[in-house]
Amino acid sequence: MRQSELFTKTIKEAPKDEKSINAQLLFRAGFVHKEMAGVYTFLPLGNRVLKNIENIIREEMNKIGGQEILMPVLQPKYLWEKTDRWSKGVGKVMYKTKDDSGKEFGLGPTHEEILTNIASKYIKSYSDLPAYIYQIQTKFRKEPRARSGLLRGREFGMKDLYSFHSSEEDFKNYYEIVKKAYFKIFKRCELSVIITEASGAGFTKEYTHEFQVLAKDGEDSIIYCPRFHFAQNKEIAKFKNDSLCPACKKTIQEGRSIEVGNIFPLGTKYSKDLNAYFIDKDGKRKLIIMGCYGIGSSRIMGAIVEVHHDDKGIIWPEEIAPFKVHLIPVEDNQKVIKTTENLYQDLQKQKIEVLYDDRKKRGAGEKFVESDLIGIPFRLVISQKTLSQKKIEVKKRKEKKIELLRVSSLYKFLKS
Amino acid sequence: MRQSELFTKTIKEAPKDEKSINAQLLFRAGFVHKEMAGVYTFLPLGNRVLKNIENIIREEMNKIGGQEILMPVLQPKYLWEKTDRWSKGVGKVMYKTKDDSGKEFGLGPTHEEILTNIASKYIKSYSDLPAYIYQIQTKFRKEPRARSGLLRGREFGMKDLYSFHSSEEDFKNYYEIVKKAYFKIFKRCELSVIITEASGAGFTKEYTHEFQVLAKDGEDSIIYCPRFHFAQNKEIAKFKNDSLCPACKKTIQEGRSIEVGNIFPLGTKYSKDLNAYFIDKDGKRKLIIMGCYGIGSSRIMGAIVEVHHDDKGIIWPEEIAPFKVHLIPVEDNQKVIKTTENLYQDLQKQKIEVLYDDRKKRGAGEKFVESDLIGIPFRLVISQKTLSQKKIEVKKRKEKKIELLRVSSLYKFLKS
Repeated sequence: MRQSELFTKTIKEAPKDEKSINAQLLFRAGFVHKEMAGVYTFLPLGNRVLKNIENIIREEMNKIGGQEILMPVLQPKYLWEKTDRWSKGVGKVMYKTKDDSGKEFGLGPTHEEILTNIASKYIKSYSDLPAYIYQIQTKFRKEPRARSGLLRGREFGMKDLYSFHSSEEDFKNYYEIVKKAYFKIFKRCELSVIITEASGAGFTKEYTHEFQVLAKDGEDSIIYCPRFHFAQNKEIAKFKNDSLCPACKKTIQEGRSIEVGNIFPLGTKYSKDLNAYFIDKDGKRKLIIMGCYGIGSSRIMGAIVEVHHDDKGIIWPEEIAPFKVHLIPVEDNQKVIKTTENLYQDLQKQKIEVLYDDRKKRGAGEKFVESDLIGIPFRLVISQKTLSQKKIEVKKRKEKKIELLRVSSLYKFLKS
Repeated sequence: MRQSELFTKTIKEAPKDEKSINAQLLFRAGFVHKEMAGVYTFLPLGNRVLKNIENIIREEMNKIGGQEILMPVLQPKYLWEKTDRWSKGVGKVMYKTKDDSGKEFGLGPTHEEILTNIASKYIKSYSDLPAYIYQIQTKFRKEPRARSGLLRGREFGMKDLYSFHSSEEDFKNYYEIVKKAYFKIFKRCELSVIITEASGAGFTKEYTHEFQVLAKDGEDSIIYCPRFHFAQNKEIAKFKNDSLCPACKKTIQEGRSIEVGNIFPLGTKYSKDLNAYFIDKDGKRKLIIMGCYGIGSSRIMGAIVEVHHDDKGIIWPEEIAPFKVHLIPVEDNQKVIKTTENLYQDLQKQKIEVLYDDRKKRGAGEKFVESDLIGIPFRLVISQKTLSQKKIEVKKRKEKKIELLRVSSLYKFLKS
């Protein structure tokens, strides 16, 4: 894409009402626009990042048998009354609305009610189980505090997977499979996650697991062994920091962190309330056993910025970046422009996504400052000086080193 | 995908509360589940169709310079007060909600307010214009009647494009470009559209254009020349049916129809209310001229079913279908299954999307009835009889003819 056509511009100053690094950098670089606390528009660059995150999640969910659906935002009250959550538990943070006849609806903060009701109609026999159903959809929660940019949204993107099983054993097997898929997703997002025990937060009375990313401005606190023999959300932690890990005797740590995913055993809570039974091999009618597995897609975007930035701007992981290459001619003379235009066409032919800074009358310094703020992984610079050597200047956003490469070795470098 | 793993099943009877063909067939074939009037879940097959429609729209929008963003559902009241639409015009059908402090929000039925406000911050000069910004997002309207399945949703998918211009002439040029892109989109969806003059419906006082598909259960009525010299929504029609077209003297017709898209000149209504100015080449401060362009993505799904079905079920256009091929072995013996399994693997290697009916103990008749209901374009049948001739039985859903083909000529046939 030509940067001259990009709808947004970078902005020098962060808005005064944004305290978090992710909100400041994402706004300044033109990824998001704040509509109100906890509610953002994803601008062209931000939308590209969000779609990249969603695609990684989708690929890994499909690999573990997930079937994608799309459930509605509007939630009928009668289903939430069946689970006694219309005004309790997560229902307390559910936005409510009504139509002109006075009939009430909720705005979905989660989708156990809708999906378990659907499942009760399609799952009748053990042969219909297991089933793994997910969606990537917009969720709503009346968060009293929404001050951390994309880390705590009132409207936010989420992948929610729900699994349905005929036995506890089958559920537990799949729970481990999802854990592995989650580690793959976060690895592709270049987020180091610590799997952390946590309370059920009104969803379940059993243990649950959170995927936490250590970050100094995170809203959570975790207590963990530095060798990861265990980690617990501070809310339920049995150990204190500075005590010793029973397994390795290393000193236990406490750290601020961001919860980017969670997995929950749901047992038969929802299948009981919503009448979701199946006939088992033994001919008996049994309740379906369920699990649920969330990942905040827009929160991941915020978490990546919190952990991947420097004082110049964002440093996007390659799979997440809005473009792979930022192509920058630093002089407006004909030879430089012509070479850059040719390279721009060629990169596109090679299916490499490129943002081409074709804006005229701007100095190299200004272009580099903006490029560092936006944070595209590879910066390619073309000038008379590089051309005289028949080379291109290549710099990785995350490294200081600048290399001069021939075009012939450029593609190998970009693909390495 | 293996049909044994598909979460949904086909259902013989349509629910009593669904009167429209699209809702009946989409429910029976397992594409949607109704949550309440005008609110549907898109099940795995339906979600695949919706994504295919969205991708066609996205490709054609990108080709005409559209930049994709994602705006929120939650709408701040103060912006809608600036345009005087919080409780007037489309604001009358806007769902409202509030947080615990009593602060009110709307659920976006359209996004002129949000986007014009954003544009006012990024567009400062004639050199920032034109700009073409779109999203594919979920919209909400308090429809008093929602009885036509996906044709009139209270929650529905929509692509909304907004264009920003420095002159009326530039706007009019782009308006024609969008018209052409819309014809391409509907052609790829195999919908024959009639471009129809209509009123501004509270958005504008000027003429607007609707893209109407003739369908006997459509909710609109249009008056049109059979040679398409003109067409008008009946609400504003100057001619009556049975009068003669002034251009060709053919008898003017009246027909029921479905509005699948519309394009609106917005003039300076929103830029004025939301303070969206630019500095023109002559140094003068001027209001940005706007246009807006909608397509109902979920409504397209309903419209396709209304016009592409027979008494057996849905007949999906190739680009829209959830799968291209329905692969059906009609006997459970080892040789048939082995050949089908190999073909299933091979089709996937060829990047052909295939639903493989691997369910055991089902007769050919039952499988064919379900296949016709689901409506996948190509049905491949394998039996001992076809194998003895070293051939596969191939049938297009939209044709009666059954052909026997060798595997070697199958791929050519599928790609023709």
